[in-house]
Amino acid sequence: MSSKKINKLHRKQTHTKQRKVEPDASSSLTSNIILEMISFNEKSFLRVENIPIDDILEKCDKQSINWINVDGLADTGLINKIGQHFNLHYLLLEDVMNTDQRPKLDEYDDHIFLTMKMLYRMGGDEIDYEHISFVLGKDFLLSFQEKEGDIFNYLRERIKIDTGVFRKRGADYLLYRLVDTIVDSYYTILENVGYKVEALEENISQDPAIEDFREIQELKKEFIYLRKVVYPLREALNKLIKNESGFIEPQTLKYYSDVYDHVIHLIDSLDTYKDLTSTLMDLYMNTINYKMNEVMKLLTIITTIFIPLSFIVGIYGMNFDNLPELHWQYGYFYVLIGMGAIVGSMIFYFRYKKWF
Amino acid sequence: MSSKKINKLHRKQTHTKQRKVEPDASSSLTSNIILEMISFNEKSFLRVENIPIDDILEKCDKQSINWINVDGLADTGLINKIGQHFNLHYLLLEDVMNTDQRPKLDEYDDHIFLTMKMLYRMGGDEIDYEHISFVLGKDFLLSFQEKEGDIFNYLRERIKIDTGVFRKRGADYLLYRLVDTIVDSYYTILENVGYKVEALEENISQDPAIEDFREIQELKKEFIYLRKVVYPLREALNKLIKNESGFIEPQTLKYYSDVYDHVIHLIDSLDTYKDLTSTLMDLYMNTINYKMNEVMKLLTIITTIFIPLSFIVGIYGMNFDNLPELHWQYGYFYVLIGMGAIVGSMIFYFRYKKWF
Amino acid sequence: MSSKKINKLHRKQTHTKQRKVEPDASSSLTSNIILEMISFNEKSFLRVENIPIDDILEKCDKQSINWINVDGLADTGLINKIGQHFNLHYLLLEDVMNTDQRPKLDEYDDHIFLTMKMLYRMGGDEIDYEHISFVLGKDFLLSFQEKEGDIFNYLRERIKIDTGVFRKRGADYLLYRLVDTIVDSYYTILENVGYKVEALEENISQDPAIEDFREIQELKKEFIYLRKVVYPLREALNKLIKNESGFIEPQTLKYYSDVYDHVIHLIDSLDTYKDLTSTLMDLYMNTINYKMNEVMKLLTIITTIFIPLSFIVGIYGMNFDNLPELHWQYGYFYVLIGMGAIVGSMIFYFRYKKWF
Amino acid sequence: MSSKKINKLHRKQTHTKQRKVEPDASSSLTSNIILEMISFNEKSFLRVENIPIDDILEKCDKQSINWINVDGLADTGLINKIGQHFNLHYLLLEDVMNTDQRPKLDEYDDHIFLTMKMLYRMGGDEIDYEHISFVLGKDFLLSFQEKEGDIFNYLRERIKIDTGVFRKRGADYLLYRLVDTIVDSYYTILENVGYKVEALEENISQDPAIEDFREIQELKKEFIYLRKVVYPLREALNKLIKNESGFIEPQTLKYYSDVYDHVIHLIDSLDTYKDLTSTLMDLYMNTINYKMNEVMKLLTIITTIFIPLSFIVGIYGMNFDNLPELHWQYGYFYVLIGMGAIVGSMIFYFRYKKWF
Amino acid sequence: MSSKKINKLHRKQTHTKQRKVEPDASSSLTSNIILEMISFNEKSFLRVENIPIDDILEKCDKQSINWINVDGLADTGLINKIGQHFNLHYLLLEDVMNTDQRPKLDEYDDHIFLTMKMLYRMGGDEIDYEHISFVLGKDFLLSFQEKEGDIFNYLRERIKIDTGVFRKRGADYLLYRLVDTIVDSYYTILENVGYKVEALEENISQDPAIEDFREIQELKKEFIYLRKVVYPLREALNKLIKNESGFIEPQTLKYYSDVYDHVIHLIDSLDTYKDLTSTLMDLYMNTINYKMNEVMKLLTIITTIFIPLSFIVGIYGMNFDNLPELHWQYGYFYVLIGMGAIVGSMIFYFRYKKWF
Repeated sequence: MSSKKINKLHRKQTHTKQRKVEPDASSSLTSNIILEMISFNEKSFLRVENIPIDDILEKCDKQSINWINVDGLADTGLINKIGQHFNLHYLLLEDVMNTDQRPKLDEYDDHIFLTMKMLYRMGGDEIDYEHISFVLGKDFLLSFQEKEGDIFNYLRERIKIDTGVFRKRGADYLLYRLVDTIVDSYYTILENVGYKVEALEENISQDPAIEDFREIQELKKEFIYLRKVVYPLREALNKLIKNESGFIEPQTLKYYSDVYDHVIHLIDSLDTYKDLTSTLMDLYMNTINYKMNEVMKLLTIITTIFIPLSFIVGIYGMNFDNLPELHWQYGYFYVLIGMGAIVGSMIFYFRYKKWF
Repeated sequence: MSSKKINKLHRKQTHTKQRKVEPDASSSLTSNIILEMISFNEKSFLRVENIPIDDILEKCDKQSINWINVDGLADTGLINKIGQHFNLHYLLLEDVMNTDQRPKLDEYDDHIFLTMKMLYRMGGDEIDYEHISFVLGKDFLLSFQEKEGDIFNYLRERIKIDTGVFRKRGADYLLYRLVDTIVDSYYTILENVGYKVEALEENISQDPAIEDFREIQELKKEFIYLRKVVYPLREALNKLIKNESGFIEPQTLKYYSDVYDHVIHLIDSLDTYKDLTSTLMDLYMNTINYKMNEVMKLLTIITTIFIPLSFIVGIYGMNFDNLPELHWQYGYFYVLIGMGAIVGSMIFYFRYKKWF
Repeated sequence: MSSKKINKLHRKQTHTKQRKVEPDASSSLTSNIILEMISFNEKSFLRVENIPIDDILEKCDKQSINWINVDGLADTGLINKIGQHFNLHYLLLEDVMNTDQRPKLDEYDDHIFLTMKMLYRMGGDEIDYEHISFVLGKDFLLSFQEKEGDIFNYLRERIKIDTGVFRKRGADYLLYRLVDTIVDSYYTILENVGYKVEALEENISQDPAIEDFREIQELKKEFIYLRKVVYPLREALNKLIKNESGFIEPQTLKYYSDVYDHVIHLIDSLDTYKDLTSTLMDLYMNTINYKMNEVMKLLTIITTIFIPLSFIVGIYGMNFDNLPELHWQYGYFYVLIGMGAIVGSMIFYFRYKKWF
Repeated sequence: MSSKKINKLHRKQTHTKQRKVEPDASSSLTSNIILEMISFNEKSFLRVENIPIDDILEKCDKQSINWINVDGLADTGLINKIGQHFNLHYLLLEDVMNTDQRPKLDEYDDHIFLTMKMLYRMGGDEIDYEHISFVLGKDFLLSFQEKEGDIFNYLRERIKIDTGVFRKRGADYLLYRLVDTIVDSYYTILENVGYKVEALEENISQDPAIEDFREIQELKKEFIYLRKVVYPLREALNKLIKNESGFIEPQTLKYYSDVYDHVIHLIDSLDTYKDLTSTLMDLYMNTINYKMNEVMKLLTIITTIFIPLSFIVGIYGMNFDNLPELHWQYGYFYVLIGMGAIVGSMIFYFRYKKWF
Repeated sequence: MSSKKINKLHRKQTHTKQRKVEPDASSSLTSNIILEMISFNEKSFLRVENIPIDDILEKCDKQSINWINVDGLADTGLINKIGQHFNLHYLLLEDVMNTDQRPKLDEYDDHIFLTMKMLYRMGGDEIDYEHISFVLGKDFLLSFQEKEGDIFNYLRERIKIDTGVFRKRGADYLLYRLVDTIVDSYYTILENVGYKVEALEENISQDPAIEDFREIQELKKEFIYLRKVVYPLREALNKLIKNESGFIEPQTLKYYSDVYDHVIHLIDSLDTYKDLTSTLMDLYMNTINYKMNEVMKLLTIITTIFIPLSFIVGIYGMNFDNLPELHWQYGYFYVLIGMGAIVGSMIFYFRYKKWF
């Protein structure tokens, strides 16, 4: 499992090396790329999907908030076309397509660019990191996702039905709801991590196994990756709040502050879990050590008791012609009694030393 | 015990996920929710409890300082009603109800919002963390507590009788006294931790047991949780002191600076105890290690003395037809003397090496 | 020893809890409280001791620098009376009486408040922490000490005789000399710690004992406590230097900068000693470990040599009817030679492996 | 391998000591020094190589962007001549020639000086650090490389053919492309490190060997060296972006921000790999420890089972005249059964203790 | 060696306590104190040595740069006389004479005060720390050294002959050259440390001895002391560069920036070596541990193989009347074969477990 993740990191970095997108390059590989536009204002709502990009750009309505969502980053021609239409800088498009890009906020004259990671937990334990980028303009929002599928269906539904709140607000509020949804999903991930920590602690206190250690290691790695996702996000959101370009309206700013608070809280929790995991490691090490010491004590007690006894019986196993004790009437019994006395005093000594 | 606490953390985070409060949602679950209002000025004092919220809001007197206290956060309808009356922002109400919210200060146009944790030690060892939020306006103070019961009864009494100091001052002074009471209770918690550290040190120096290690672990976790409570509070109080909105009168500011100093001192003490606990860990590890080494030395001494002796007696236990020493007159006694010499020189060697 | 110190910390924190001093409360417990006033200017010098506080306050001379020193903080009535006379804030008096107060500087309109710790080494090894507070006004200096006895006698003498320098300057210079004397005494403490580190290093390299470990622990704790005293002092003095209230005259400021430099130097030295102590810990651990390894190697060598030999002699101790070697003429000597060869090759092997 | 690298560090520092270049000193040692000039504008392109420096300086065209590249720093006379022609400060030339100079940016009136490291991976595992410096003026760019050979051939080609983008821009864009190429090469290095970490983790989980530990050590050292290269670069680039001298045109600034982002990302990745490597170390230690414990348990089990048995058979090997059990009909079989019972109960005990 | 250094630290601190220099005190102890003046301008050069201070002060030429150098700080009378002549503050003189003073820069109205440490390596391994202070005025430079002998002879020569550069510049350039010489000498020290690290690594990988550990400890201590010297110097030089008093001319400032860069580089290298040393420690610990594990495995293998065999031969050494196997024709050979089979299967098991 862990090797797969490191592998992924590498694949990403390979992207990085090849990330120079020649602006005129065009790709015919459009499979698995999903185009979607939601255009809405207080009165109207329009959702189109899987029609050519030119048609979508045509349908953009100056009176509405236009949200264009692209799933899949393989079609550079498509992304460049969107870039040209919305006057996006070449470097911005590069960041959109570079799935290894760390979360950040860039400010342009006509729009704000925000990129971050969306986290899933797909079936098993593996956390899936999906690269997602947003371009926020006055009346449009572009979102570019690395892969098909997202966690925004609830929001799509809200836009459709919630004419009271959602449809009255601008693209900045829409972006807030998307970012908030993503940040909320981080909590779910962290919660799961919390359950694991709890389960591990119980396991380890009772019977620490090498597998528990491996799991602690996996948790630690998880924290390393999560930190890489969450820490830069704090910075990006802070920049967004401080931003005075006017793309975020004053009353929406309060909401972004709230998301920012959540991210701070996430970082706090991440640190807490990291500390807890490190106490888990101590617990594991110590319990293992304790058990080992018990084993060593037993070894010592057994050896210390029996080695002198074996020596004594060895003495009377010697074949000397002249070994007087052998011929005593009760020699054997005296020896047995003597050995009993030795064992007794040793046990007394060990008890005194509190070894068992 | 510890698993329960982690559990609690989870429960909190579950709240977090469900924290979106639809403003119009209304709850009929009002059991265990306690409403209380204390309205006072220099001349009058009024305390009502457990009457409907509408009656309470009606009784609010513009000439008085009105303190409305809500115990229990389950009734979102009630909280929303208070919110509407005092013009509280939707996000503020969310923070009131999110029991996992970290301590912070938010400034609004009409009021200041402060949220923190109240710590109890319920019966046993378990520290109970209760979420508490304050909204401070010009002539009112709202307090929302997670659960029934608090540590403010002394203050309620003071308001009633202390016409000289307390009743002359505004809502800002009342908030100071509440916050100060909470911060003082942190000292009690920390003091108890101090006693534990002291007791542990004595135990460990004498006879370190695996239970002592577990207790050190528990202490460490306590520090992790306390830090999460106290560190953000410093930030929040600093923001409060720097605040220039006019909700805090200049002469009261001095008092808030004092509370801020106490929080700084708490953080200092927390760090001190953390360092002391880590020296405790060293002490534990070292004492265990020392005892283990003693055990190993005994094992070595016994083995090293008796194994060669056993070999010697083994030699003369062989059944060779031709083993001349066996037939010597004093063979047995020579062997005994030889073995005595070996033992003597070994003991001398061990003494020389300072092994015992 | 260490438990007593932790105990003391607790006693302090108990004070903290009870630190609310009701301003009107008066105490008849004046035993062990020493009142002293030194009033001086270029021409006159007056020192009175142990007369009632009212007489002292009466004797305060507007033309002179008046230094009032109080030893013992138990008489809250006395302290409140001084507070009223010099217009000291209620919270300032609280800080004077709270012996657990961390070093800090507070600025008021009419005076500056500085509180810090005075360190003694009483007879034995124990460092004694005494709480001391200063209130500096235009023409007066108040000092409040936790206990009888201080390290200022040399200064009292200087004031009396040094008309050239001391008596020409103001209360700010007097405060500087007092603070400088306290900071200098920190050096003595640290110097002593340095000697201990040196002695420990010698002990440990030669023959590490469990007592050495305990002493390292004690040193570490000392550093933890010293840090708590010195670090906040840096901050307080920095605030004093930056202070522009005019209580410190420009030419005296240079002297405060000098004390500030000394405190920085102290912190540097504290860090150095902390690092040295941690290398001591490494040295201890490693030497112990080295000795243990030596023990284990001896055990292994002895066991590895003699166990096979014992097996061989065991073979020829068997009582089989048909065991041909037993009846060989030189069987016994062949066995002896064979065992000698085994021992020889083992010793060669161990030498080759550099085990001894 | 590692000793060679440290050695290199020393050679560098030896340079440092001898770094005082007397400005008039002239060297005849010009072997292995390669001179190259590329002069281009939108319409023309000129590339000359290995002609005397005077000819090159003559060919500098005020209408073109002139890039002069020097490979090899041994000829101080040559470098001083270039320095005089472009009015470079004596200290700048010193930094050019000091191959141990850490990455930095210096601003002069007529030009900007940027120095950094170029990383190769030559054949084997060894990373090669090459010192490279840039001087950026209004219409020229000087680059000084420690050794022959670089990673800029692709860029040389682009300048020649890319009349659309490259040739339209100024020297600042050229510098950006060079720096970007270098920073991109860091990614390749880090990627390789990533593969190593992955491979190591697999090795260690299965069968940790002392060689794995050595490799972890090598990785750690690699990180120490890489950090020394990358961290100061962040600072230098930040200074470049904040720079307002006008050598960087506003539209190019966006590109430098991008490189800066990549450096931040590199630092993030470096930290991630460092943390991963430290978990590797834990894994190694723990797996080794686990294996050792298994060994110790086996030792204990075997010893604990057989030592008492050996004692018992020793008893009946004694030669006492009067040892009644020896003469019992089934004495031998009773003893065998008794020993079987002891073994059985011991195995039961070990199972109960979960030792195997 | 190390105890001597700590001792020195103490001696320094003892100085600190006695550092109050009464301004009027005069000392007749002038032995070992060397006075030297170099007075130069573009045209003239004068160097006098060992004449009374009054004569030297008289010879100070307003048209020249006057460098007065004092070796030895014991003669407080002399230093006070210089202080009075150049109008130096009492606290400045204290810092000159306090050999434990940490590096710092103080700004006065008429001059700048810089104090730092000069490092020698005297014969053996011991690094010698000499306290040196500079007072830079408009046309004079004072230098006070703790002891006779310095590293400035090369500079004295340069001043005499280098009329082109050196003699044209002011006292600020002279100070730069002195400081630069000192900082360069730090590189030599660090280089030597580097060689030690390299040698140690080789030793430890091959055959780690307790002496290697001691040397790592010594290196660590060296770093602790060097850090104390270099870190505050960075601060002091930064203050010097930012200084706007006009004592440093703009064109000289560039040189000070260069020295500042070198100090930053030194700190970088110090950190690098510290990290390398800590990996050395890991290497040492691990190699020791690895060797110990090998020893333990051998012990286990030998014990595990021979203890059961010894038991078996013990069985047939019993003297039961009725022990049928003893009377079998080939009993002895069956036993030998059986023991061979046990040894074989054990070796197979150990191989399978990869124990050797």
